[in-house]
Amino acid sequence: MSWFQDSIMARKGAAKGEARTEHAITEESQGRYHYVYGAFAEPILAVDPGAVISAETHDAFEGAIKTERDLPSEKLNFPFLNPQNGPVWINGAEKGDCLAVHIKSIVPRGPQPRGTTVIMPEFGGLVPTADTALLTQPLPERVKKLEVDAVTGVKWNDRITLPYEPFIGTIGTAPEIEAISSLVPDYYGGNMDLPDVAPGAVIYLPVNTKGAYLFLGDCHAAQGDGELCGVAIEHPTVTTVQVDLIKGWTIRSPRLENESFYMTIGSSRPMEDAARGAYRELIRWMAADFGFEEIDAYMLLTQCGRIRLGNMVDPKYTVGASVLKSIAGTPR
Amino acid sequence: MSWFQDSIMARKGAAKGEARTEHAITEESQGRYHYVYGAFAEPILAVDPGAVISAETHDAFEGAIKTERDLPSEKLNFPFLNPQNGPVWINGAEKGDCLAVHIKSIVPRGPQPRGTTVIMPEFGGLVPTADTALLTQPLPERVKKLEVDAVTGVKWNDRITLPYEPFIGTIGTAPEIEAISSLVPDYYGGNMDLPDVAPGAVIYLPVNTKGAYLFLGDCHAAQGDGELCGVAIEHPTVTTVQVDLIKGWTIRSPRLENESFYMTIGSSRPMEDAARGAYRELIRWMAADFGFEEIDAYMLLTQCGRIRLGNMVDPKYTVGASVLKSIAGTPR
Amino acid sequence: MSWFQDSIMARKGAAKGEARTEHAITEESQGRYHYVYGAFAEPILAVDPGAVISAETHDAFEGAIKTERDLPSEKLNFPFLNPQNGPVWINGAEKGDCLAVHIKSIVPRGPQPRGTTVIMPEFGGLVPTADTALLTQPLPERVKKLEVDAVTGVKWNDRITLPYEPFIGTIGTAPEIEAISSLVPDYYGGNMDLPDVAPGAVIYLPVNTKGAYLFLGDCHAAQGDGELCGVAIEHPTVTTVQVDLIKGWTIRSPRLENESFYMTIGSSRPMEDAARGAYRELIRWMAADFGFEEIDAYMLLTQCGRIRLGNMVDPKYTVGASVLKSIAGTPR
Amino acid sequence: MSWFQDSIMARKGAAKGEARTEHAITEESQGRYHYVYGAFAEPILAVDPGAVISAETHDAFEGAIKTERDLPSEKLNFPFLNPQNGPVWINGAEKGDCLAVHIKSIVPRGPQPRGTTVIMPEFGGLVPTADTALLTQPLPERVKKLEVDAVTGVKWNDRITLPYEPFIGTIGTAPEIEAISSLVPDYYGGNMDLPDVAPGAVIYLPVNTKGAYLFLGDCHAAQGDGELCGVAIEHPTVTTVQVDLIKGWTIRSPRLENESFYMTIGSSRPMEDAARGAYRELIRWMAADFGFEEIDAYMLLTQCGRIRLGNMVDPKYTVGASVLKSIAGTPR
Repeated sequence: MSWFQDSIMARKGAAKGEARTEHAITEESQGRYHYVYGAFAEPILAVDPGAVISAETHDAFEGAIKTERDLPSEKLNFPFLNPQNGPVWINGAEKGDCLAVHIKSIVPRGPQPRGTTVIMPEFGGLVPTADTALLTQPLPERVKKLEVDAVTGVKWNDRITLPYEPFIGTIGTAPEIEAISSLVPDYYGGNMDLPDVAPGAVIYLPVNTKGAYLFLGDCHAAQGDGELCGVAIEHPTVTTVQVDLIKGWTIRSPRLENESFYMTIGSSRPMEDAARGAYRELIRWMAADFGFEEIDAYMLLTQCGRIRLGNMVDPKYTVGASVLKSIAGTPR
Repeated sequence: MSWFQDSIMARKGAAKGEARTEHAITEESQGRYHYVYGAFAEPILAVDPGAVISAETHDAFEGAIKTERDLPSEKLNFPFLNPQNGPVWINGAEKGDCLAVHIKSIVPRGPQPRGTTVIMPEFGGLVPTADTALLTQPLPERVKKLEVDAVTGVKWNDRITLPYEPFIGTIGTAPEIEAISSLVPDYYGGNMDLPDVAPGAVIYLPVNTKGAYLFLGDCHAAQGDGELCGVAIEHPTVTTVQVDLIKGWTIRSPRLENESFYMTIGSSRPMEDAARGAYRELIRWMAADFGFEEIDAYMLLTQCGRIRLGNMVDPKYTVGASVLKSIAGTPR
Repeated sequence: MSWFQDSIMARKGAAKGEARTEHAITEESQGRYHYVYGAFAEPILAVDPGAVISAETHDAFEGAIKTERDLPSEKLNFPFLNPQNGPVWINGAEKGDCLAVHIKSIVPRGPQPRGTTVIMPEFGGLVPTADTALLTQPLPERVKKLEVDAVTGVKWNDRITLPYEPFIGTIGTAPEIEAISSLVPDYYGGNMDLPDVAPGAVIYLPVNTKGAYLFLGDCHAAQGDGELCGVAIEHPTVTTVQVDLIKGWTIRSPRLENESFYMTIGSSRPMEDAARGAYRELIRWMAADFGFEEIDAYMLLTQCGRIRLGNMVDPKYTVGASVLKSIAGTPR
Repeated sequence: MSWFQDSIMARKGAAKGEARTEHAITEESQGRYHYVYGAFAEPILAVDPGAVISAETHDAFEGAIKTERDLPSEKLNFPFLNPQNGPVWINGAEKGDCLAVHIKSIVPRGPQPRGTTVIMPEFGGLVPTADTALLTQPLPERVKKLEVDAVTGVKWNDRITLPYEPFIGTIGTAPEIEAISSLVPDYYGGNMDLPDVAPGAVIYLPVNTKGAYLFLGDCHAAQGDGELCGVAIEHPTVTTVQVDLIKGWTIRSPRLENESFYMTIGSSRPMEDAARGAYRELIRWMAADFGFEEIDAYMLLTQCGRIRLGNMVDPKYTVGASVLKSIAGTPR
């Protein structure tokens, strides 16, 4: 029996972590993709807990970068970037609940070379940006198209091939009253660009408004910590997730569980604030559900907490803080 | 003849800075106040350039804090804070234009004590917050109600009376596709909490979407640099502004002009990024319109640039960078 | 009678703020200038409280930039920058005391053009630096030499002349066990680049080690908030200060008093931490010496506190937080 | 044959990575431990490249916290914290060279319970500090003493035992002209608190001044990413390192190599600046020695770079950026 049978999703979910219905979102059924996370858009689907949803995701550029001669500054039309599937209405979800999303698989789709990464002006971790606004000239634009294959990996050049390690770059629920760009990560999820949001994991998202409004997109074939130049190996996929609903479990920001660890996710600026937010929520979680005294959890994580840097390039930086299941023990 | 006759608004505005029509927004005509900046709301008014608009603003708590015994954590209902008047549709405004807003007057209204400042949990510059998430206990909540009078000032205690120096804490246009909490400042304006946005000044706002969608509210009777505890002297007012439209003047973030100086306004985190953004836009403005070489403007502002800290408490910090008109010269 | 007679220095100083002895530090008597703040150097002078000291300061480049054709990257020899006069041993000073320094005058010296500002690689507020390490190319180096005159001011070009508003860029005491580059500002003073450290003001410095070890240098003829490109109008001077000793007054970081206000000075990164540090010390000062309850001071500064940005370019950013004397009242 | 035979130390070192002489630093031969990194102290040892040095290190509190009833605020005497062994003079080392240090072993010493972690005022990642200066009350002090054993691990409580994963918290060379607290990490090394500085690894340190002046101390028995409360499992050890000298290899900040990866280490504030510094140096290293075009390295690290957070509690935060050897290839 896999660890998933003991996951919080399986133990607390309304559907007990069972897959009950199947739903497909194709490019055609999706129609218009979305560029904001909010409850202003019409849901394209309403599902019960237990639904398994397969979505045809676009890459972050909606396929606009087709060759290495395409200039991002010409082909891209800010703010219409990072197209999202959804929203999916979750029947029964209300503010204060938790939406559990088990990532079942990510499969690349579309013609080769289907992977894309670019250098574009005012974006990236080692260049001046709209936020870190400097006077020096931007780097020249550049596009790299790559073959992406689930089995053989991501071919960088003749010598280097990276393993195919896909994850969902952007996933979340609607904020209560806002509609926020899909380029932004925050307490509701969004553009976290955190490689742990990968097949096998369960991500727990706060429900901020009736119906939850699940969005997802922006799958990456590979990404290093921080997504340094701002653009991972972007690629179109069929991404399959299973949703469940944990009534009355109110969380402030996304959490994640996989076979090995429990993780909390913070998005803020400066980066130390993202780390503080992630670690504080992890401590509070350990105190609420794992039987730790808060100060003891603080001292223990000092010795064994793990930090994963998601992005250092988006409007907020994202950090995951985690503790091994073998140390945390079993939640109540 | 006042400096205003030579302002950019008067020289470039479609209405030449002339007051042409008068409009009132009362509590009754406003109806529901707004808590997000966005183009999803129905405009309550459509006006031509040259319109003079008087709005009955609420205080940031919509009057919910009535006595010093009211607990903010009980009386306030996040995220329904910082209620805004509007949106006002500006006829002829299109993306890429600039909306000029001349602040004509701010007059306190409502029964005494009409001024309010509070300490509330997880908010303020010297306490842990949702962003700077720490484990230490919050300060005790506290409410202070004050008499606010346009002539006699703001009575702090028997010894200290502060001058009445009102300004608009929150003002801006709609983002293009987002709807963002009125607690946030950003490139479209919003909750900047910058004391220079005061009667006499002209603020220039980017138009991001057809009709511009002007919102305003959150007037302060007095505020120090940084709005340290997070809550200035909040008070309800009648605020009167005159709008004009500068076609084709595309600005990235708010700018401001008064009798003495030209200012650019940056909102970001960490605070140095807000300062960088403000100064870079000032340099670019001096290069585009005042005849300076960019590097010369950079070196000159090193010797005479002025920084005003708006807020150090909101989701983004706000900084204004300015240069004296006597130094900058006359824009083309 | 000037305000100085009522200053903390005059009321609490061992010499009662009286000028008692006169001392000159010439280039010759100084000999080797210093590039670190620390107690490892031999004092060049030992004085009693009440000493008036006139020092021939060098500019920050020790005169190495003589013409606009000099390349900073060739002429400067990092870390031998920002030469300091001193150290001056203060008789009777011990850890836990406060050294009061009244700035009496700053007079430019040396042949014209005696003012210098430059653009140099990896230094400045709007370029990549050693700390904000980016990949974009630096700006081209540039040198500007200017005539500086105490009466006619600082001639920028034919149109623009800035007033001569001199101040001490770098001043402080020795840390207890460290020796820190004179390019750094911190709790002991150092390279704060704060324009309020000007003639007329009294700066209060923590004594960290026996003898205090006063250093000073780096006088600026003019400077804007933030010292944007990293180099103000550097110039050699004769700077005259009067020192006094306040036994047993233990302060955590520099404070300043002038005719109008009381100020605390914070140096840190990110910039919000510098502002937090300055404001917290101001609150603690108001609570300790001016009769305010701490929370009341916090709420009051929210309404009337003032922030001055010193530098946004040095290894730590410097911020001054102040309150008007008319509001703070009289310290005990 | 181990990877070490192919390390940069073995290939470029003056002693070819060979162990040639043996030296012991006992508590007695050390005498006074040091609290600053600088060239003002007298070397206790002068060695040639190839020297193997075993040092009896103290814990960060120099053994002052003996029981769980000891209050850190009473027992500790700031700034006399984090005692360091050394300095060791390296014969032949000159500014611009690189000092390679191969960490051979760390063995716990002293009576049980020999491990210590504490909560102390104004220190830690989730509390107000001298830098993030807030008004809220500190957490109560707390001391935890633990049994530390190289084989059985670190006993947290009856349920949890952490593996013994020791590393050197503080190691570095002298700055050129400064003497900086051993609590600070920076370009010369120092208090990085980075768990990768562990037995088996080689750390490369810039030589800033003749003789290099190697210091080390502050070994941790276990530590999570960020050293959250500020105090890892501190313990006294016998730490054995082998030094070598790479003439003319000028590096800006520490680098590290182990069996799996090459790493660069950045220390700065805010945390994104530490990450920027680490990643930029890694890119420059890949461009200088591994045959990558700089922009290609930037884009490649976006897909496969790894970030390790050392500390988020010291005066500067420390981040390691790394690339797998299998991807980077062999340096020239």
